[in-house]
Amino acid sequence: MKRIITLTTDFGLNDYYVGAMKGVILSINPDAKIIDITHAIPKYDVIKAAFTAQNICPYFPKETIHIVVVDPGVGSERKPIVVHSEQGIFIGPDNGVFSFIYKSSKEVSIREIANVEYLLEERSNTFHGRDIFAPAAAHISLGVDINELGAGIESPVLLDPPEPTISEDAIIGEVIYTDSFGNLITNIPGDMINNSSEIHIDKFVIDSVASSYQDVEKGELLSIIGSSGFLEISVNRGSASELIKDYRVTVLK
Amino acid sequence: MKRIITLTTDFGLNDYYVGAMKGVILSINPDAKIIDITHAIPKYDVIKAAFTAQNICPYFPKETIHIVVVDPGVGSERKPIVVHSEQGIFIGPDNGVFSFIYKSSKEVSIREIANVEYLLEERSNTFHGRDIFAPAAAHISLGVDINELGAGIESPVLLDPPEPTISEDAIIGEVIYTDSFGNLITNIPGDMINNSSEIHIDKFVIDSVASSYQDVEKGELLSIIGSSGFLEISVNRGSASELIKDYRVTVLK
Amino acid sequence: MKRIITLTTDFGLNDYYVGAMKGVILSINPDAKIIDITHAIPKYDVIKAAFTAQNICPYFPKETIHIVVVDPGVGSERKPIVVHSEQGIFIGPDNGVFSFIYKSSKEVSIREIANVEYLLEERSNTFHGRDIFAPAAAHISLGVDINELGAGIESPVLLDPPEPTISEDAIIGEVIYTDSFGNLITNIPGDMINNSSEIHIDKFVIDSVASSYQDVEKGELLSIIGSSGFLEISVNRGSASELIKDYRVTVLK
Repeated sequence: MKRIITLTTDFGLNDYYVGAMKGVILSINPDAKIIDITHAIPKYDVIKAAFTAQNICPYFPKETIHIVVVDPGVGSERKPIVVHSEQGIFIGPDNGVFSFIYKSSKEVSIREIANVEYLLEERSNTFHGRDIFAPAAAHISLGVDINELGAGIESPVLLDPPEPTISEDAIIGEVIYTDSFGNLITNIPGDMINNSSEIHIDKFVIDSVASSYQDVEKGELLSIIGSSGFLEISVNRGSASELIKDYRVTVLK
Repeated sequence: MKRIITLTTDFGLNDYYVGAMKGVILSINPDAKIIDITHAIPKYDVIKAAFTAQNICPYFPKETIHIVVVDPGVGSERKPIVVHSEQGIFIGPDNGVFSFIYKSSKEVSIREIANVEYLLEERSNTFHGRDIFAPAAAHISLGVDINELGAGIESPVLLDPPEPTISEDAIIGEVIYTDSFGNLITNIPGDMINNSSEIHIDKFVIDSVASSYQDVEKGELLSIIGSSGFLEISVNRGSASELIKDYRVTVLK
Repeated sequence: MKRIITLTTDFGLNDYYVGAMKGVILSINPDAKIIDITHAIPKYDVIKAAFTAQNICPYFPKETIHIVVVDPGVGSERKPIVVHSEQGIFIGPDNGVFSFIYKSSKEVSIREIANVEYLLEERSNTFHGRDIFAPAAAHISLGVDINELGAGIESPVLLDPPEPTISEDAIIGEVIYTDSFGNLITNIPGDMINNSSEIHIDKFVIDSVASSYQDVEKGELLSIIGSSGFLEISVNRGSASELIKDYRVTVLK
């Protein structure tokens, strides 16, 4: 059965780990369409993985299965889970990696992945990506009912990503994601910003919100509503992350 | 509809950007076959992306759609374009990234991508890869006529990659691409070289053209007609780019 | 014809080389399912590639075709080969990259890839991945009989990966693979270890074998039977490779 399964991990691309996961999936469902999102999440950075999952799922069909494995607690008591919401199906450890999904979904159901019928027969305590998450995803992609996987979970682990503080005159937020271009993505939603907003970050004051990088000269700092819908701080054809060290942001309305 | 769509970008693999593009494509055409070429073009290096596009397209079926996004001018006046030649279909910004394709193709037609029917409904000014190039490619992969996308473009932006200077006794060229092995690829076509050619580069003189790396001892410098058909300077099991800093090349015939 | 072809190389992801191989495969068999294992094998590290091939093939269907190209001797007398065993079909240079496969397979047949009917018409001496291995794999994926490719090979090149020394009281082995988490994988099979084993490595003594990383405090050293079935030395949420420089391991039974 054709079905998309995406992979987001901190495994890197140097080792055979990602390859083993792909083999497990295709051995169970030869027609699965495996899509690499990234394997370069910084090691153990659950928040960055959570942000990635939230940012890609709106662009995939709703029946897509997203495996997200950033799993510093592998082999401990933390449970493997499957999350079903109107945004997709998500598989990974219960360590908060789906926190953004819980917050942004209208309906969420969460189950432990426990039914060994849908796991590899031999399971290590160090590589649940291969032994638990990949086979569970592959079986779901073949039509296995999620309710078959295990008991419902009522209180999943929730990370508390920092929220902006809003007062009458100002919004105080922070940079929560730096991309490889050096763009700084803040936690301030774009719809809180207007064209006359004045942005303070580190020792810089940016007195307007650009509509494209080209609104300023090459090498100059700007603020912009980025492609994820949040306020971003960028440098036209350069890197804001090289310029800015203090990641607190104040927006004067 | 099955159809290959390749991706070449400078987005890196650390962020969710490539993943979002893949989701957009598969949401429109679930049967598209997405092939990653590379996402590690150095940031904003339009020439390297142009060279990459030229070097891969001969090996793909002619109906393949190649998306190439190295786009420092995203959101400015530069136009998104689709290029159709006997070498394939190419989608990206009109910033010269298809210069080699224009030069090497017998017939080229170029159109602006403007018809919003084939783009994402919400479009950012910072991520045309996701909002314009990916959906346009996906719609073309479903059979949409390229002429539907927008008006024809007569004078696309052309980069002027350096050409070798040819005199009676010598060819003077330069290194235009360094690969991850440290091989230096020059702009001198292999068919200008013969076995008695003497190659001068930096402080080195190479007095013949090897037929394989193994023609010289391990660690020694050699020249060879490389896999892209151009003269290359290499070190057997080593890196020529560590040895050579001056990238001008003179070939004495 | 649907068939999985995996790719393991030291080509890196910066260049167009992997892309060209994919194009060659899909031009011959548009239905091939190309799966990237890794392209980040350290340059010319045949042993690491051999270890990777051995570790992924058990997780793929047995009819999978694994291309492994770490090929410092490309263009020399070393032969391109295809290896068929009950573990899969393997294509690459005869330089020892399939040594582990030979050792772990019950039945192996090896043939030279020589029949030009199944190769690219124009073949470079520097890029057999594109010109020989990719087209051979694609033709095999279409059902070409392996015996058609060339003559049988009786004495393939064999690397001699270090084996542990076993005495009455101790096993002396060594670290043979370091992963990107800093886990040190030794050549000591897990079934030689019991819970009271005492492991000596560098200046450290580890007095038991953990069942998960969480058995010790964050930042502490541990030993564990890893996901590849061998004894590994790890640090809970840290990197053992930063701590340990001497890679000899002694296990006191």
